[in-house]
Amino acid sequence: MKLITAIIKPFKLDDVRDALHNIDIHGMTVTEVKGYGRQKGHTEMYRGAEYVVDFLPKLKLEIAISGDLVEAAVEAIIQSAQTGKIGDGKIFVTNIEQTVRIRTGESGVEAL
Amino acid sequence: MKLITAIIKPFKLDDVRDALHNIDIHGMTVTEVKGYGRQKGHTEMYRGAEYVVDFLPKLKLEIAISGDLVEAAVEAIIQSAQTGKIGDGKIFVTNIEQTVRIRTGESGVEAL
Amino acid sequence: MKLITAIIKPFKLDDVRDALHNIDIHGMTVTEVKGYGRQKGHTEMYRGAEYVVDFLPKLKLEIAISGDLVEAAVEAIIQSAQTGKIGDGKIFVTNIEQTVRIRTGESGVEAL
Ligand SMILES: Nc1ncnc2c1ncn2[C@@H]1O[C@H](COP(=O)(O)OP(=O)(O)OP(=O)(O)O)[C@@H](O)[C@H]1O
Ligand SMILES: Nc1ncnc2c1ncn2[C@@H]1O[C@H](COP(=O)(O)OP(=O)(O)OP(=O)(O)O)[C@@H](O)[C@H]1O
Ligand SMILES: Nc1ncnc2c1ncn2[C@@H]1O[C@H](COP(=O)(O)OP(=O)(O)OP(=O)(O)O)[C@@H](O)[C@H]1O
Ligand SMILES: [Mg+2]
Ligand SMILES: [Mg+2]
Ligand SMILES: [Mg+2]
Repeated sequence: MKLITAIIKPFKLDDVRDALHNIDIHGMTVTEVKGYGRQKGHTEMYRGAEYVVDFLPKLKLEIAISGDLVEAAVEAIIQSAQTGKIGDGKIFVTNIEQTVRIRTGESGVEAL
Repeated sequence: MKLITAIIKPFKLDDVRDALHNIDIHGMTVTEVKGYGRQKGHTEMYRGAEYVVDFLPKLKLEIAISGDLVEAAVEAIIQSAQTGKIGDGKIFVTNIEQTVRIRTGESGVEAL
Repeated sequence: MKLITAIIKPFKLDDVRDALHNIDIHGMTVTEVKGYGRQKGHTEMYRGAEYVVDFLPKLKLEIAISGDLVEAAVEAIIQSAQTGKIGDGKIFVTNIEQTVRIRTGESGVEAL
């Protein structure tokens, strides 16, 4: 099992979700986060104080799927989350060693 | 070291925490998330607009422990988080390569 | 690629961020979390009901970097996040198998 973590622009959530549904991937956990990328930080004076202005709101999507679906899922996320402007976000793929559905106790791919 | 990530129903937090305390596991990070599972999405009309209604609030628990405690911890979470109704949640186990306690700089299992 | 996850005291965010900038690490995702560590839980009576009082607000920082920067990044986080008082937090290092920059489709270290 693999975990796909995608940091996306918040208004893209429905598009990404639809793109995943279209390839039969159902199941996702969403967290409100803030972040910055390689445009680095810059600070701004505001009413006499210095503020870091580059933490921007993003959504973090986490999608657990079997390994053979990763390539298609990553492709679907790229297509649906892309605007072409800076800040479109990142995708990270990591390994999951064990999965359980709490209601039934099922484990492995059965639990997804 | 392993990381147990459990997505649970919010009202189950105290029960899960108590179950882990009972087996001497102390230490947890909790995030408010929303998500959906394999009952998939459906939309609903509300005042003339279409809403996705299936993102439900959940809590994500993250618990770093030594590998030999994983089985007992997973069992404790299943027992304490289960209601038997859909949406009880998921458990994912992943590998942690390095751990540090920031206050002391201790690393490895000493840091847990 | 590796993912550094650091749970820190919220007021330390700017210090950690500056310390990472100083070693040319730019890019971070921040989540508001709450948690407790090995001082364990204790409960308190308040207006006749029992409350768990030890979930404290923390920030979770996630930083994806190439493996050869991990040691320096961990050191920078320890130095900048440490107060010497309990609750300074934890650092976890995990493996990332694949990384993508959504705007360009670049993958691997190019995507960081
Ligand atoms: N190295 C990183 N580690 C963890 N999170 C990151 C990293 N880089 C970016 N992010 C997260 O992804 C979000 C979007 O990043 P962003 O798309 O700006 O990356 P980028 O590499 O700067 O690409 P672009 O040049 O297209 O802007 C950030 O707000 C942050 O939450
Ligand atoms: N594949 C997945 N990837 C990431 N998170 C998931 C996934 N499936 C479920 N979740 C998270 O777990 C929460 C609960 O899921 P849920 O218990 O409904 O899973 P399920 O497989 O549909 O099981 P059940 O049939 O018992 O409802 C979701 O709201 C979501 O946050
Ligand atoms: N085992 C753990 N798993 C996951 N998160 C943890 C764990 N232990 C601590 N944390 C997170 O780190 C935060 C800070 O923990 P803390 O620094 O108190 O750890 P500690 O081991 O008790 O160290 P100290 O003795 O310095 O207080 C917690 O609020 C929680 O969010
Ligand atoms: Mg950027
Ligand atoms: Mg479900
Ligand atoms: Mg502590």
